[in-house]
Amino acid sequence: MILPLFFISYLLLASSSSSHAAVQDFCVGDLTAPQGPAGYSCKNPSNVTVNDFVYSALGIAGKTSNLIKAAVTPAFAAQFPGVNGLGISSARIDLAPGGVVPFHTHPGGSEILIVLQGTISAGFVSSANTVYFKTLKVADIMVFPQGLLHFQVNAGNTVAQAYVSFSSSSPGLQLLDYALFGNNLPTELIAATTFLDSAQIKKLKAVLGGTG
Amino acid sequence: MILPLFFISYLLLASSSSSHAAVQDFCVGDLTAPQGPAGYSCKNPSNVTVNDFVYSALGIAGKTSNLIKAAVTPAFAAQFPGVNGLGISSARIDLAPGGVVPFHTHPGGSEILIVLQGTISAGFVSSANTVYFKTLKVADIMVFPQGLLHFQVNAGNTVAQAYVSFSSSSPGLQLLDYALFGNNLPTELIAATTFLDSAQIKKLKAVLGGTG
Amino acid sequence: MILPLFFISYLLLASSSSSHAAVQDFCVGDLTAPQGPAGYSCKNPSNVTVNDFVYSALGIAGKTSNLIKAAVTPAFAAQFPGVNGLGISSARIDLAPGGVVPFHTHPGGSEILIVLQGTISAGFVSSANTVYFKTLKVADIMVFPQGLLHFQVNAGNTVAQAYVSFSSSSPGLQLLDYALFGNNLPTELIAATTFLDSAQIKKLKAVLGGTG
Amino acid sequence: MILPLFFISYLLLASSSSSHAAVQDFCVGDLTAPQGPAGYSCKNPSNVTVNDFVYSALGIAGKTSNLIKAAVTPAFAAQFPGVNGLGISSARIDLAPGGVVPFHTHPGGSEILIVLQGTISAGFVSSANTVYFKTLKVADIMVFPQGLLHFQVNAGNTVAQAYVSFSSSSPGLQLLDYALFGNNLPTELIAATTFLDSAQIKKLKAVLGGTG
Amino acid sequence: MILPLFFISYLLLASSSSSHAAVQDFCVGDLTAPQGPAGYSCKNPSNVTVNDFVYSALGIAGKTSNLIKAAVTPAFAAQFPGVNGLGISSARIDLAPGGVVPFHTHPGGSEILIVLQGTISAGFVSSANTVYFKTLKVADIMVFPQGLLHFQVNAGNTVAQAYVSFSSSSPGLQLLDYALFGNNLPTELIAATTFLDSAQIKKLKAVLGGTG
Amino acid sequence: MILPLFFISYLLLASSSSSHAAVQDFCVGDLTAPQGPAGYSCKNPSNVTVNDFVYSALGIAGKTSNLIKAAVTPAFAAQFPGVNGLGISSARIDLAPGGVVPFHTHPGGSEILIVLQGTISAGFVSSANTVYFKTLKVADIMVFPQGLLHFQVNAGNTVAQAYVSFSSSSPGLQLLDYALFGNNLPTELIAATTFLDSAQIKKLKAVLGGTG
Repeated sequence: MILPLFFISYLLLASSSSSHAAVQDFCVGDLTAPQGPAGYSCKNPSNVTVNDFVYSALGIAGKTSNLIKAAVTPAFAAQFPGVNGLGISSARIDLAPGGVVPFHTHPGGSEILIVLQGTISAGFVSSANTVYFKTLKVADIMVFPQGLLHFQVNAGNTVAQAYVSFSSSSPGLQLLDYALFGNNLPTELIAATTFLDSAQIKKLKAVLGGTG
Repeated sequence: MILPLFFISYLLLASSSSSHAAVQDFCVGDLTAPQGPAGYSCKNPSNVTVNDFVYSALGIAGKTSNLIKAAVTPAFAAQFPGVNGLGISSARIDLAPGGVVPFHTHPGGSEILIVLQGTISAGFVSSANTVYFKTLKVADIMVFPQGLLHFQVNAGNTVAQAYVSFSSSSPGLQLLDYALFGNNLPTELIAATTFLDSAQIKKLKAVLGGTG
Repeated sequence: MILPLFFISYLLLASSSSSHAAVQDFCVGDLTAPQGPAGYSCKNPSNVTVNDFVYSALGIAGKTSNLIKAAVTPAFAAQFPGVNGLGISSARIDLAPGGVVPFHTHPGGSEILIVLQGTISAGFVSSANTVYFKTLKVADIMVFPQGLLHFQVNAGNTVAQAYVSFSSSSPGLQLLDYALFGNNLPTELIAATTFLDSAQIKKLKAVLGGTG
Repeated sequence: MILPLFFISYLLLASSSSSHAAVQDFCVGDLTAPQGPAGYSCKNPSNVTVNDFVYSALGIAGKTSNLIKAAVTPAFAAQFPGVNGLGISSARIDLAPGGVVPFHTHPGGSEILIVLQGTISAGFVSSANTVYFKTLKVADIMVFPQGLLHFQVNAGNTVAQAYVSFSSSSPGLQLLDYALFGNNLPTELIAATTFLDSAQIKKLKAVLGGTG
Repeated sequence: MILPLFFISYLLLASSSSSHAAVQDFCVGDLTAPQGPAGYSCKNPSNVTVNDFVYSALGIAGKTSNLIKAAVTPAFAAQFPGVNGLGISSARIDLAPGGVVPFHTHPGGSEILIVLQGTISAGFVSSANTVYFKTLKVADIMVFPQGLLHFQVNAGNTVAQAYVSFSSSSPGLQLLDYALFGNNLPTELIAATTFLDSAQIKKLKAVLGGTG
Repeated sequence: MILPLFFISYLLLASSSSSHAAVQDFCVGDLTAPQGPAGYSCKNPSNVTVNDFVYSALGIAGKTSNLIKAAVTPAFAAQFPGVNGLGISSARIDLAPGGVVPFHTHPGGSEILIVLQGTISAGFVSSANTVYFKTLKVADIMVFPQGLLHFQVNAGNTVAQAYVSFSSSSPGLQLLDYALFGNNLPTELIAATTFLDSAQIKKLKAVLGGTG
């Protein structure tokens, strides 16, 4: 015997809902609609399947045949819309021997890293300019507070891999070198605001595609 | 004499606003538009009236002629769009003699309950598995922390009624029995993840409309 | 047979916790300790009982033998520490015939009101100076957005009663008349900042105990 | 040599993004689209320029040739869409000699004021009805907690100017006199909910354009 | 030459700070002090070292020689105080062949899981009672929205391992079976609020150490 | 006649409060007590005066007789405890001719700047490496989104001054040059994580007091 009248007033109200469901357990991002300050608009719940909550691209190693011998593969809301609005996201870090994820920040979230392969030296700098730096082995986890400059370096002679999670579905990623040398900021302005020598700036602009 | 130039620069700026008003005191939900992570899009303020902020459906007793002898009538943002974005919502609970609101959670908010009629035994279980359980009389209030399993039971021989409020305009409602037995989760998977006997599971699937 | 090794690593870690429990489902306020911006310090969880989550003082009608013929009995975190940190609280409103809860605001939260007895005329004013005003009957609910001026008036010839909930455990309560006339703000300053006549101000200062 | 393969997996994913950019550093408001509870929809990032983040209207003194001899010029999200979603906004206050910004509240944010010219007496009243009042000189800053009634008065014989910032991109502004006397609230209702005399109410309704 | 006067006013002010540092980049939890609603009190920053931000206990496999053949090893703020206040935490899941993490919820946060070894079938149930269920292979990630019932099961014949992160430093963990059968909730009350048969309840109480 | 019984139940409850007041309009920071994740503990409200909400140190020009010819004078919660918990704070910027506030971030808040004197060229870089750069005149305001690298430069031949506000009472301040060159990060590690030449790094370490 089926229970047909269970919570009848609730079901009546729910059944009168149109295409936009009443209960908001999640908000899978609709990347074709505009964003608001809290994230993407929600995909219609009736079109959501388990595949919206599963992402497999982190299973593919990022290509490290580049100058930094490293790759970061994000699973932010823009790549993995299932995390939209849930306050969490992830990324994969691959480091060939000698590989480096250079100094960067995540303006929108804190990060927790676990070493999956190899050894990784990681560090961050506080507002008080103190360095918190340590070499991590497999299964060690390290937390990087929101917005602080940090880096990861392969500390061994073999491939290293890490998996990171963030306290935001869109934590952002600002790479220091790209921010300084990968755009059209005039050399003299960079010199004035960083104390770097012009020759140094021009050298890195050439490497990173900057102009001016 | 009317004060025509009071806060002139403010009014000038305000008068240049188009259909979307400048000041966001409230955001009455437009249920026909998509949701975002923070709730529904706002109805155009110029179409908002006092009726958007008043809801009368809780004046009607929910039907309790069902197996649980109980009904929950929600006034969440989906039913009462005036609460959208305001971090609060309500519901009515009706309990016939013997009535029970079975174990459930609200994933998105804490709850505060006031007994309006009869006596109600209510309880919740903490993450530490401690039971907080008490029989409440008229005008007693009890708070249920966000996300924890809780229940309410008619403790007397007469009709009981409660009114509950939530710290979210869309707190959600996950009924344990429906989550376990009212869908297509395979019996063996339920058995493995709950330790319940298969016969017990099949019996409740039959009652609650589950398959598999 | 008891399941002694279930989640063993979790239990091992949990059992090593000292007096401050690991999992923070709730934070019953310790009123004898200082507050922080998020509320009171938490009472030691091992001393928490169900009575911390139940409050019975709203069962007693507030005394309305006063000039406004009304009473507000709060169940905020300061009176009902069980709601501390849970983003919700409540209060009871009693209105004798002719009773009025004068214009006031709650700086820290939105409010939802349900009429329990009698009829109540309630209203709020938006930043755009629009009045949202309606007479409510038993079981009608009305929402008042955070921080906006609002009031409740007994609209009938009998006692009226309402129960209100807030989207904060400490929503605050600023009564307009008390803020203007119940303290030592100089009459000329009140006149300058409200456009009220001095005679009117002095008359209300006398009623409400103000000086200056 | 340009570094073409730097963070290759990230760039590949980013390059597949459509018109809505992946990383949400900011959300310049699109005033032509509906708002949600968290603010305006974001303007397409590819159309954003530095001019979206700069606002020059506060360079123009508000007109003080009015009864209050004062003007408030807001730079909220509705006027300065660059602040949308960033939790901050500003305004300019001009006070002719004798000028007054009458009692008001900001329902959605706290305020910090700096005196730029002249001397200003400012105060706020707490929920406990305590007055916090002081005369400020140039460069003094004062903070006004969210939602509390406050005012500013020119304390000197010369023009005074202040610049204020808010902890919200849409803090709102509820002017007490306009809320009470600048709309269609019936005189008797105002009298009942403020204890003001009817003659006083009618006098101010006439000044502020109220009816009823 | 050292730059001794750089940002002199800032440094002067900073140097006058006492033992509690001015800038709050992080708030390593002091587990010996009381908690507040936002988490633990902060350890004195001058005693903080990199070891506060690194945690190695997840490198040790949880013991799975128990009835569920599984273990969850948390790195919440109570175990890893470096995450306190940062809105993120982690845990390790070990599943022997046949291992199961039974139905449970995290009242305080969403979860993202990555499979590190083996294959894992995982699922959650929405408020609408829809099941989102999938078998995950190594490096697949899956997100579980806050507060919803979910489970993980070893889907292969070998040991499986997963690493999970949460959008809270104290997400909580409520195990359904323990909440129902591992405490002193009376059998008849459980029966009434779950529809389970008394014999079933008593059987599981015996296994899980419940009384009553 | 004084109104002695107004809101009697409220006053009765309030009068029974001990040293820690019931209503939390504000939370003036007690710098001698530990912080929590949400800020400092609150000073006892009965000891709070208007002077806790007013700060005059921004009236004093910061000393610019240093290499950067600039000074930043903060009024964060650590200097101005009245803003604790209110989500707002301020600072003063002084720029001699040629003065520069070098590249820096505020990990905890967005910033809004108003030019008070002179002309200032200001800019920030987004996660997409786009530069938003403009020269501002007196009274122009510019917003800098949370966590992004930005700078300010005196664009004229005279002294320039700006006043900035933040969307946090403790926004933090991470100066890029100090983070890189003002501590004990080894030169080779800086080289690896920034691509700067070792000679350049050593030169700046000497200027900024770094070691290693």
